[in-house]
Amino acid sequence: MKRTAFFISDGTGITAETLGNSLLSQFEGIKFNKITLPYIDTVEKARTTVERINAACAEDGEPPIVLDTIVDEEIRELLASSNGFKIDVFSTFLKPLEKELKTHSSYTVGKSHGIIEMNRYKDRIDSVNFALDNDDGARTQQYDRADIILVGVSRCGKTPTCLYMALQFGVRAANYPLTDEDMESPRLPEVLQRYRHKLYGLTIDPFQLAAIRHERRPNSRYASLDQCDFEIRTVERLFQQQDLPFINTTNFSIEEISTRIIAHTGLIRRLN
Amino acid sequence: MKRTAFFISDGTGITAETLGNSLLSQFEGIKFNKITLPYIDTVEKARTTVERINAACAEDGEPPIVLDTIVDEEIRELLASSNGFKIDVFSTFLKPLEKELKTHSSYTVGKSHGIIEMNRYKDRIDSVNFALDNDDGARTQQYDRADIILVGVSRCGKTPTCLYMALQFGVRAANYPLTDEDMESPRLPEVLQRYRHKLYGLTIDPFQLAAIRHERRPNSRYASLDQCDFEIRTVERLFQQQDLPFINTTNFSIEEISTRIIAHTGLIRRLN
Repeated sequence: MKRTAFFISDGTGITAETLGNSLLSQFEGIKFNKITLPYIDTVEKARTTVERINAACAEDGEPPIVLDTIVDEEIRELLASSNGFKIDVFSTFLKPLEKELKTHSSYTVGKSHGIIEMNRYKDRIDSVNFALDNDDGARTQQYDRADIILVGVSRCGKTPTCLYMALQFGVRAANYPLTDEDMESPRLPEVLQRYRHKLYGLTIDPFQLAAIRHERRPNSRYASLDQCDFEIRTVERLFQQQDLPFINTTNFSIEEISTRIIAHTGLIRRLN
Repeated sequence: MKRTAFFISDGTGITAETLGNSLLSQFEGIKFNKITLPYIDTVEKARTTVERINAACAEDGEPPIVLDTIVDEEIRELLASSNGFKIDVFSTFLKPLEKELKTHSSYTVGKSHGIIEMNRYKDRIDSVNFALDNDDGARTQQYDRADIILVGVSRCGKTPTCLYMALQFGVRAANYPLTDEDMESPRLPEVLQRYRHKLYGLTIDPFQLAAIRHERRPNSRYASLDQCDFEIRTVERLFQQQDLPFINTTNFSIEEISTRIIAHTGLIRRLN
C-alpha cells in the first residue's frame, strides 16, 4: 500500500516535516512517498501546490495526506480546497491555546511566524565553530569554555554528536580521541584531568566499529576486529575506573545520543 | 506575563520541541520558560514529571502548557492528571489518520515509535564526513560525489550550512572559499569550472561580514569594512556574470538558508 504525504509550510517546512514524519512513523505497514514543500507563501505557489496534491490523488487513487503549518488564511483555504486529507496543525492547536493564554496569536492576526533571531544565530555559529576548532583533540586550550568534552576511540561518533549538539542546541561540545598511547596507562590523559567534570564517554560495539573503520581504511590494523575489540575493552574499563558517565552509541541515532547526554548531564541548552 | 511550557516525549523530544516552539512563537507577547523532558518512558518518571508540572503551576499561578508525544497510555493518563494545560499531539491527529488510512497505528497498539534506522544513520554520518573532508576547499578531488558545492567569501556561512544540510537532510555539501586570489580575475577558479552545475553562491551584507570577521581576527585588514565590501562586490559580480544561483544569508537562519537552497535547486534529500 502506497500513499503520498505532503508537508507544507510558508517557512522552512521543518516543523511540518518533523511532526509529519513522527505521525506517519506510527503506521509501519504503509509506505509513504513524502514530499516537503517549504516557502509556500503566495497564492500562486498555493495554486500550483493544489494541482500537485490533486495529481497525486489521481495517481494514487487515494487522497494524499496534507499536513501544513501555513499562517496566511487565503493560502490555507486554497490548500483546504484540494483533494488531500488535511491535517491543519495551527488551526487545531492555536485556537485552544489562544483561549488558555487569553490573547490572540500572530496566526489569527495574519502575521508571519518567521522571526529573525540574531542572537540565536550567533550562539549557534559560535557553537559550530567551537565544535570544529575543538574537534579530535586538535586543541585543548579552549576546554575552559566547553560545556562538555566527549571522549572515546576514533570513529565512535564523537564528531557528528558534537556538531549536532552545536546546531540543534547551541551546546559547546569538544571531543578528545583516546588513542593507543592513552591506553597504555589506566589513567586519564593529563590534559583531561582538570576537566573530568565535563567528560562524557562514548563507546560502541566492536563489530560496528570495525565496519565503520573498514570503510575509512580497508584491511588496516586500525580497522581489524582485534584492534577495535582491544580499544573498546580498554576505554570501557577506563570509564568505569574513573567513574565517568558513558553511553553505548551502537543502536542510537545522533539525535538520541545527543539528547540522552543532555538529559543525563542536565546541560543547559543555549538555544530554546 | 510569564508561562512555563513543558515539551514531553518518550523519545528524543525533538518533535514535541519543534512543534511546541513553532506554536508558542505565535504568541509574541508572552515570555515562555520552556522545558524539554525527553525519555519519559516509565511510570516513575511520569510521576516525577507530574510533580514538576504541578510545582510550576503553583509558582506561576497559571497552568503550564504541556505538549507531549507520548505513546504509552498509562504514562499519558498520568500526565493528563497534572494541573497543566494539555496538548496531546498524537491522540489529536492519529485517530483521524487511522480512520483515513483504514489501519491501526503503533500508538493505538501501544508500540514505541523509536525505530532504529541504520541506513539513515549511515547516510547521515557519510554526509557529515563528506562536509568535513570537503570543507573550505581543503580537497576538491571528491567534487564528483558532491550534491552541491557552496561558494563564497570567508565567514559568509558556508561551513555551518554544509553541516546542517548533512545532518538534517543527508545532502553531501562541499564548500569552496573565494579568496583574494580568485577575485583578481572575473572567471571561476579553474577547479570549479567543470562543476558549475553544482555551484551555489552565498553572499552577505558587508557590515555583518565585518562584524563576524572582527570576532575572529580583531582589527585586521581581513575584518575591515573596506575589504569586506570589496570582496562582496566582487563575488556578487562574479555570480551574476557566471549566471550562478546565489542567496544573501544576512537575514536568514541556517535552516532557512539550507531549505531555500534545497527548494531552489530541487536537490534530493537522502534522509526522509
